[in-house]
Amino acid sequence: MTDRIAAVKTYLLDLQDRICAALEAEDGKARFAEDAWERPAGGGGRTRVIGDGALIEKGGVNFSHVFGDSLPPSASAHRPELAGRGFQALGVSLVIHPENPHVPTSHANVRFFCAEKAGEEPVWWFGGGFDLTPYYASEEDCVHWHRVARDACAPFGADVYPRYKEWCDRYFHLKHRNEPRGIGGLFFDDLNQWDFDTCFAFIRAIGDAYIDAYLPIVQRRKHTPFDERQREFQAYRRGRYVEFNLVFDRGTLFGLQSGGRTESILMSLPPQVRWGYDWKPEPGSEEARLTEYFLTDRDWLAGQP
Amino acid sequence: MTDRIAAVKTYLLDLQDRICAALEAEDGKARFAEDAWERPAGGGGRTRVIGDGALIEKGGVNFSHVFGDSLPPSASAHRPELAGRGFQALGVSLVIHPENPHVPTSHANVRFFCAEKAGEEPVWWFGGGFDLTPYYASEEDCVHWHRVARDACAPFGADVYPRYKEWCDRYFHLKHRNEPRGIGGLFFDDLNQWDFDTCFAFIRAIGDAYIDAYLPIVQRRKHTPFDERQREFQAYRRGRYVEFNLVFDRGTLFGLQSGGRTESILMSLPPQVRWGYDWKPEPGSEEARLTEYFLTDRDWLAGQP
Repeated sequence: MTDRIAAVKTYLLDLQDRICAALEAEDGKARFAEDAWERPAGGGGRTRVIGDGALIEKGGVNFSHVFGDSLPPSASAHRPELAGRGFQALGVSLVIHPENPHVPTSHANVRFFCAEKAGEEPVWWFGGGFDLTPYYASEEDCVHWHRVARDACAPFGADVYPRYKEWCDRYFHLKHRNEPRGIGGLFFDDLNQWDFDTCFAFIRAIGDAYIDAYLPIVQRRKHTPFDERQREFQAYRRGRYVEFNLVFDRGTLFGLQSGGRTESILMSLPPQVRWGYDWKPEPGSEEARLTEYFLTDRDWLAGQP
Repeated sequence: MTDRIAAVKTYLLDLQDRICAALEAEDGKARFAEDAWERPAGGGGRTRVIGDGALIEKGGVNFSHVFGDSLPPSASAHRPELAGRGFQALGVSLVIHPENPHVPTSHANVRFFCAEKAGEEPVWWFGGGFDLTPYYASEEDCVHWHRVARDACAPFGADVYPRYKEWCDRYFHLKHRNEPRGIGGLFFDDLNQWDFDTCFAFIRAIGDAYIDAYLPIVQRRKHTPFDERQREFQAYRRGRYVEFNLVFDRGTLFGLQSGGRTESILMSLPPQVRWGYDWKPEPGSEEARLTEYFLTDRDWLAGQP
């Protein structure tokens, strides 16, 4: 298992480097700042944050590798057979909040988990995905985002994209609003049904696809002019992002409850946010169209090549 | 029990009226708008919200009375003996976010819960309290706030204030920041150790004390000039308020998970909020003093008359 963990780690560190380089080049002004940190109970991470850019108002691309002699109770609650095992958890997680409300917020994550015990087979799985949260959305962008997702999944079976697209819709859902967080993408967890090499190849395909999915959208929208009213709309919608991350996101809650590094976990929160009582966009407006048309768990590739 | 519920309801509706009238008079510009709502499963509420005032940027003072034939599972999880009982829950809950960062945010709540079953004694309890969240704090305000709290508790026993002050510190604590939400006040739950009349008199004392605790602070601070930098500090600190309410507050989580009225529950969230990666005030600044001196679960009345 040591070789496998080393291979996953090498891939993840390189993925973090490549994503940061691509985003910096696209921004053209801001640079990532790095915070290397250690976890007292074992492991650490390489947090990279960026902000006040020409494109990116706030963002982070984080690598972490944490391990320990014994799984925390919160991690083994649903898998009692793993209680007391040593574990390793590695991942890259990123959130990009652009300043321009015409450029969507994006999130991506790839992670590997392994629980070991002397004399027994290691238990391991992968998880990850990417999803998009537009403010002023375009059909073209949604189709492109999902097409890249589908094409990345295709070599692994025709059922993979529809299953993980649907899982993404189900996961990124604000129950108390009965509203999806965004226009979806891919989400998967507990992936170990294929052999290790195939699973690892799959998460590499997903990790590598993120930049191909996001950059063309950024390039198409980043020069669209915007005004204060549109920034306000973005700030209200970002409130929904905060609600999801703090109330529902398992990764965030697990991190905060298990003594994770708070600043690395909460780097996902948007820079400026508004809440208003019973705030709603004008009926018939472009803003109302976001929830009425785009945030409806649509099949973006129906009838598309 | 019907008479008791009617008496509690009459008190709570009157308390809501009196608090709204006092806050409107203090604001001088904004008026509360009322939203009466019904809960499909039984009961409803009278949500009153205010905003864009001379004093209050966003606030709400909500009354609700919900009931049903059978306690929701989330409410009986920790009290299995109540499963399947009919229930009534009544309360007034309020949060006031002033625009001026020199005026603290305040929160208060009084609530009554009763679970009944034919042929058995009703099970009932009260809960509530009030707590203060300053941005630019003053010793004088903290002492005044806690003195009003102590004096309201005094007729019910000398141990009441210290116990409920300590419970408040314990409850309004952001574990992932190791930081209290504010400078505290009172918090209590499961109150039924005294007879009904005494318990009811106690929550009336607490409900009535809120305005005496808050208004003098508002009056002292509302004319203090403030600048953009201080508004920014307030916005970052309000981020902590959001983190507490969405990650830890039992009332908020219970409400959102049990299909409560989302807009009434989330009226507690501040109007404009910021998050920055690893954001910290300058060492030695007035802003740093908030966390270093004021947010430390201090005994504000030590050595005070």
